[in-house]
Amino acid sequence: MREQVIRSEKIFEGRVVNLRVDTIRLPNGRTSQREIVEHRGAVAIVPLLDEETVLMIRQFRLAVNEVLLEVPAGTLEPNEPPIVCAARELEEETGYRASTLRPLFSQYLAPGYSQEILHVFLAQGLEKTAQRTEEDESVEVVPVPLARAVELVLSGEIRDAKTIAALLVTYYLLTSER
Amino acid sequence: MREQVIRSEKIFEGRVVNLRVDTIRLPNGRTSQREIVEHRGAVAIVPLLDEETVLMIRQFRLAVNEVLLEVPAGTLEPNEPPIVCAARELEEETGYRASTLRPLFSQYLAPGYSQEILHVFLAQGLEKTAQRTEEDESVEVVPVPLARAVELVLSGEIRDAKTIAALLVTYYLLTSER
Repeated sequence: MREQVIRSEKIFEGRVVNLRVDTIRLPNGRTSQREIVEHRGAVAIVPLLDEETVLMIRQFRLAVNEVLLEVPAGTLEPNEPPIVCAARELEEETGYRASTLRPLFSQYLAPGYSQEILHVFLAQGLEKTAQRTEEDESVEVVPVPLARAVELVLSGEIRDAKTIAALLVTYYLLTSER
Repeated sequence: MREQVIRSEKIFEGRVVNLRVDTIRLPNGRTSQREIVEHRGAVAIVPLLDEETVLMIRQFRLAVNEVLLEVPAGTLEPNEPPIVCAARELEEETGYRASTLRPLFSQYLAPGYSQEILHVFLAQGLEKTAQRTEEDESVEVVPVPLARAVELVLSGEIRDAKTIAALLVTYYLLTSER
């Protein structure tokens, strides 16, 4: 079932992504090509302000030309452990520090062409500090009741895949733990 | 909050993705760059063989160098309506035709850098035809009870974002409709 890479061509090296094209030999002996986006990996955080309320952020996403409602997230710095990145991004984007960060699950965002893996953490015991977003970020913090967030997924107002997966896993865990 | 594109440079045109780099003016007046993966969009299908069982597929994904357990999915042909694509991909990948395809939700897979939107359908009333995967695809069909699939998300054995979101939305809908 595996594919054997017989040639790999670097196309682009960027700040967030690299692009390469691999020529592969398929299990049936034929050759084909795969376009692959290289990515360092990322984290997302579900910050629970209290038992009911998730801190979400609203930000413009140029790739899809829309303002999206998402959970806080960010790209790993080189060699940065995911939990360190989660603590950093949570404080930068929302202005809160968490007393506990619990790893929930990890997900590949678009494994058909992208390397990116994203690690999801549940943040609890939040304490207010100060929001300090990066120079090229502009985010608005929006508290949303978790049950309402699930409705916003079903009504199509939340459209970001990592956010949908993170919210529904959190909802499932919290309702089955009660 | 929106970003204004002041220059757009095409880097690569491929079979599945294109890559461009946009120079933007931020709301604060500074300039920055965004690397953007262009994509035609895609569909995923949650095929319910009966009330309890989802037909999943196992396939090798070179970008992440792993065999993943996913729901059936595929990229839109140019100008192809999502529901037509869903019917086609379901039959190609699993060898089943559905009597109903219900749109569940749509999700952006990686809006930080990718245009890709993926439309999720629930397929019911399945009738056996024949699997006929594309020349460069090799997929194995795996029936999985829906409750078991949710456990496989929590245990980390299902790691594909579109699949996690699709399974949990389906689980939520079916358990709240009962």
